[in-house]
Amino acid sequence: MSVTAPAGFTASGITAGIKDSGKPDLALVVNTGPEFVAAAVTTPNRFCAAPVYLTREVAEGGRAKAVVLNSGGANACTGERGMDDAYAMAEQTAAQVGCEPGEVMVCSTGLIGAFLLMDIVTAGIAQAAYALSDSGGEDAAVAIMTTDTVPKTAQVSTAGFTVGGMSKGAGMLNPAMATMLAVITTDAAVSVEVAQRALQAGVAVSFNRMDSDGCQSTNDTVILLANGASGVSASEADLTAAVTEVCTSLTKQMLADAEGASHTIAVTVSGAASEAAAEAAARTVTSSNLFKAAIFGGDPNWGRILSALGTLPEDECPYDREAVSVAMNGTPIFAGGAPQDGASSVDLSAHDVTVDIDLAAGEACVTVWTNDLTHDYVEENSAYST
Amino acid sequence: MSVTAPAGFTASGITAGIKDSGKPDLALVVNTGPEFVAAAVTTPNRFCAAPVYLTREVAEGGRAKAVVLNSGGANACTGERGMDDAYAMAEQTAAQVGCEPGEVMVCSTGLIGAFLLMDIVTAGIAQAAYALSDSGGEDAAVAIMTTDTVPKTAQVSTAGFTVGGMSKGAGMLNPAMATMLAVITTDAAVSVEVAQRALQAGVAVSFNRMDSDGCQSTNDTVILLANGASGVSASEADLTAAVTEVCTSLTKQMLADAEGASHTIAVTVSGAASEAAAEAAARTVTSSNLFKAAIFGGDPNWGRILSALGTLPEDECPYDREAVSVAMNGTPIFAGGAPQDGASSVDLSAHDVTVDIDLAAGEACVTVWTNDLTHDYVEENSAYST
Repeated sequence: MSVTAPAGFTASGITAGIKDSGKPDLALVVNTGPEFVAAAVTTPNRFCAAPVYLTREVAEGGRAKAVVLNSGGANACTGERGMDDAYAMAEQTAAQVGCEPGEVMVCSTGLIGAFLLMDIVTAGIAQAAYALSDSGGEDAAVAIMTTDTVPKTAQVSTAGFTVGGMSKGAGMLNPAMATMLAVITTDAAVSVEVAQRALQAGVAVSFNRMDSDGCQSTNDTVILLANGASGVSASEADLTAAVTEVCTSLTKQMLADAEGASHTIAVTVSGAASEAAAEAAARTVTSSNLFKAAIFGGDPNWGRILSALGTLPEDECPYDREAVSVAMNGTPIFAGGAPQDGASSVDLSAHDVTVDIDLAAGEACVTVWTNDLTHDYVEENSAYST
Repeated sequence: MSVTAPAGFTASGITAGIKDSGKPDLALVVNTGPEFVAAAVTTPNRFCAAPVYLTREVAEGGRAKAVVLNSGGANACTGERGMDDAYAMAEQTAAQVGCEPGEVMVCSTGLIGAFLLMDIVTAGIAQAAYALSDSGGEDAAVAIMTTDTVPKTAQVSTAGFTVGGMSKGAGMLNPAMATMLAVITTDAAVSVEVAQRALQAGVAVSFNRMDSDGCQSTNDTVILLANGASGVSASEADLTAAVTEVCTSLTKQMLADAEGASHTIAVTVSGAASEAAAEAAARTVTSSNLFKAAIFGGDPNWGRILSALGTLPEDECPYDREAVSVAMNGTPIFAGGAPQDGASSVDLSAHDVTVDIDLAAGEACVTVWTNDLTHDYVEENSAYST
């Protein structure tokens, strides 16, 4: 399972002491070859963290042998010192695993604006390198957790190759990409171009369709490493399908573990004029605090779905309001411009809630996942840094 | 005070029985002349309520003698029957106060998607007409409350004329316009064109700069009635100033009473390339659940301010991240791309919190107000319809 499921990868996760809690907080993933293809998708946030700059730079070259990841500190908004620290992490990892600093990607997650304690990080990297093993994927997944309550891992074997992955993230999941770090590994042989396209395609329909609280992180990074150790050259279609399956599995695990959530909500918009229109319509619902609080309360207050849909500009998402229909958990609640019988009696007691909106304006269909807004969300996020 | 502060207006607020609680739920505001100028600003929501259509129609003619308002039901997403009910309210009000149905504006607020019980509404309109008095402004302000805990009223006397107003709204305050109903009255003599422009200008910098929970209502309506009873012709500048002052006072009262809020937060963005850029930057912060939950927790987790700012596209809001500086409650927390001393020790115990962001990219400055995200917000909004 996890990043060590494919052949030719080792990993580890250890307690360096970055977190006060004593929980694991530093992970390594090492590609032992024979090939060292690497791709990454990173946050569009303009205040992105120091390690994000470094990882983008490495990804441009398309080649990496190792990824070092820490939890307990985001190294974001930390200025020049933060950049120096990120480069130091790459150098120390390179020295420990025997590669060039330019072949190491770096990921950090945790509180924004605090400096990393580099003595601790340096000692941790040595310890993590010593612990590397071809069954270390689970330990690595545990070491990148922040407010996550369970590690997230996935793997798929298909057409002679394997894709494995791990991710973390339980809050700050966002309209552009979730807060999250993910490392996906594969023993397929693929070109850098195919790896990058497969990763982008997989991320677009999984991590990017998850909107937990509408907030976008400074540190979001998804990395794909490919080494050809299976001896199988994967087609682009096969690789994309497998990467998408792993990303989707990780996405659903992250939603199920979202900070303080008690419901997972799938908002599906069909009959849209375009995929962009469908996604915009779904996101306007998944980002409504009023709707999400109502679901927490088990209250089928469906007017909040329509009131959210109504905020979309017509040029962004055309529809005729008399033609729009909405169902919750399969029960029709609104059609022909008016409420339907049974609208107020929808049962929301189960963990999974579905909202199906038919815009009757085209053929496109998109699902965006979110969760409810709960007391526990407020509690966890009101006391995160202190 | 309230809508009966200017000469030539009567008002009332009574219990019709629309609300189960027995609290006041129906209000009338009547313009006794000699002039009957009317203007309105209404929600851009595409699923706007039946009374919003009716009120827009009346406002296009620029003439109204009465406004009837009910709480306890929004008459939104109610189809043809909802439109018939809104017109019936106008007809019954016209019959009671002695004017044409086309001279009556209608406002409704409450749960979306439920039909009004028209027998109760009809009897209530008769009762409210009987109760009309030139000191009825306070009763009217009470009768339009939903989850508000206090009525909101304001008045300004200047340059020989008076402007009075009332509003309701404590949640669903939004990026385009707050959920809210407001009626502003004045005894100044002004043209329809001046009234409409003054109202738009006042709303733009008050109600439209309040973002409580990012949600936009189906029923938002702000009405201005002017009758010239003071005998004074107001200049456009004087009227605009007075209307803006009343709208701003009502805005601050609504924020202070926002559902479940324990802090009022003023986010001021200066040094922006344009007013639109400044407003976009401020709104990206006021709409961050993570930031708002941190303020509730008294936690100066300022990284969430920068992470929100970072989501703005560069063409929408240009800035150089090394030049951006941020202060909370007057304490510098971020400058030159790095945290400042004292960033983690900002005291957030007072009710009012200020966030000052200098983008160092121009001269424009905008303040947007919001409130914190609290347990009480989740509680009130998870159990609103049931």
